[in-house]
Amino acid sequence: MARKARSVDLTQVTEWDDGKSHRKEDYLAAEEPLEIRVGDNPLSVTMRTPGHDIELVAGFLFTEGLVERRAQILMLEELESTDADENRGNVVSARLDRDADYDSDKMRRNFFAASSCGICGKASIDAIRARTLSAPNPAFRLDPEILVRLPETLRESQAVFGRTGGLHAAALFDATGGLLVLREDIGRHNAVDKVIGWGLLDDRVPLGDTILVVSGRGGFEIVQKAIVAGLPVVASVSAPSSLAVRLAREMGQTLIGFLRGRRFVVYSGDSRLEK
Amino acid sequence: MARKARSVDLTQVTEWDDGKSHRKEDYLAAEEPLEIRVGDNPLSVTMRTPGHDIELVAGFLFTEGLVERRAQILMLEELESTDADENRGNVVSARLDRDADYDSDKMRRNFFAASSCGICGKASIDAIRARTLSAPNPAFRLDPEILVRLPETLRESQAVFGRTGGLHAAALFDATGGLLVLREDIGRHNAVDKVIGWGLLDDRVPLGDTILVVSGRGGFEIVQKAIVAGLPVVASVSAPSSLAVRLAREMGQTLIGFLRGRRFVVYSGDSRLEK
Repeated sequence: MARKARSVDLTQVTEWDDGKSHRKEDYLAAEEPLEIRVGDNPLSVTMRTPGHDIELVAGFLFTEGLVERRAQILMLEELESTDADENRGNVVSARLDRDADYDSDKMRRNFFAASSCGICGKASIDAIRARTLSAPNPAFRLDPEILVRLPETLRESQAVFGRTGGLHAAALFDATGGLLVLREDIGRHNAVDKVIGWGLLDDRVPLGDTILVVSGRGGFEIVQKAIVAGLPVVASVSAPSSLAVRLAREMGQTLIGFLRGRRFVVYSGDSRLEK
Repeated sequence: MARKARSVDLTQVTEWDDGKSHRKEDYLAAEEPLEIRVGDNPLSVTMRTPGHDIELVAGFLFTEGLVERRAQILMLEELESTDADENRGNVVSARLDRDADYDSDKMRRNFFAASSCGICGKASIDAIRARTLSAPNPAFRLDPEILVRLPETLRESQAVFGRTGGLHAAALFDATGGLLVLREDIGRHNAVDKVIGWGLLDDRVPLGDTILVVSGRGGFEIVQKAIVAGLPVVASVSAPSSLAVRLAREMGQTLIGFLRGRRFVVYSGDSRLEK
């Protein structure tokens, strides 16, 4: 059994406030390395906030293309690090079906350690668009009045952020604005992998009737992961990047940014918006 | 010659504002893949905001340990992508001295495609602390009254953020608060690699009399890169992670968070603070 995950740490700090300084206790968002193995082969090390590691690994294997469906993951197991140092991170080992697209040599060459950064680990620029991706549910309709209420639900449901100020959140909502799942992580891509992993393990993929809301900005890797999971709508409270917009447009995904108050910007796929 | 770098793109979007929607033009922070090669061998692909790519690659090679000093970089060259598609990113090729710590097999195994995510590309957890790092300048003294003015200088100097809302910034300041260099990027680690790469190419490394200020949070990889560059102080406007604090303490670096208004929190190394 793995040790208990901590998503916050408590520490002593010095606060300087308008010329006066004093010692106090402060919460920190936990960040620790997680090693992902396929069988006995190390696949990747990612820096993540401990908690929901099984979902994280399931989501990672799926959104990065190592498995195409739930059934290809035969087992996910949390292993205690063999190192005695308690600061060392945990290990999750995955056993995959032999028809999964896992080739340790190929991984080593093209994918190894691509880790949580989504795209940055690809061996060449040509690999970026190489995966076959299909368009997410074109019939899904999005009610703007529901959409503008989601960030408040997200904030209210964020358990850790209020204490540390340091965590990203990702959440899945249904079309009526009901919260399905929310996960937090020091890495936005990890939070996204955790909610998609939750969906995969709960046999809800493709998530064709679901809205993904992320804190922060909507970058390329977020859109890429969401497309793999069949999510028709990705909304963020900040700005998307140019490449995220280009990918969302090419793939027919609805991409929303600056979702704040009663205002948002639709960068792609505004046909899903109810008038 | 490489084509001209664009750090912002202009695009058509739909703005929804309190029930009314209209089309308008909007700026996007540019995000494109950059392939880094050592000689003819692809080393990594990173998603970055175009601009200052030579500095980015110099900083990356240095902070990720492929070179230890300026002189080991014999040449950095921007190559046009051979692909006719103008959307394809550029390529920077590095020629390294034969005494540089570059071993294409080792890179392939342990480092390949670690890319801009700093730590996530390492092949095993053990690799994280494997590099020998020395403590940054212990004699450096930090005046709090100067420190609290830096975020405003950072914001005033950010050329792109005002238009896109989507870019991170990293800047180097001297002890008197003078701005040495500021760079922006869709990835915080890239912005840090760009300013450190600037310092390396300008023969200023180790940056022992310099303060690094980053937008957003101070994660492990930011602290790690800063320690490699000999920076005694890292300050961010948001929260650091637990592992960033642990590393800064182990290495004797001053780590500041929540630098806002006339207040900040010192997580590590408060002996450098002038009383």
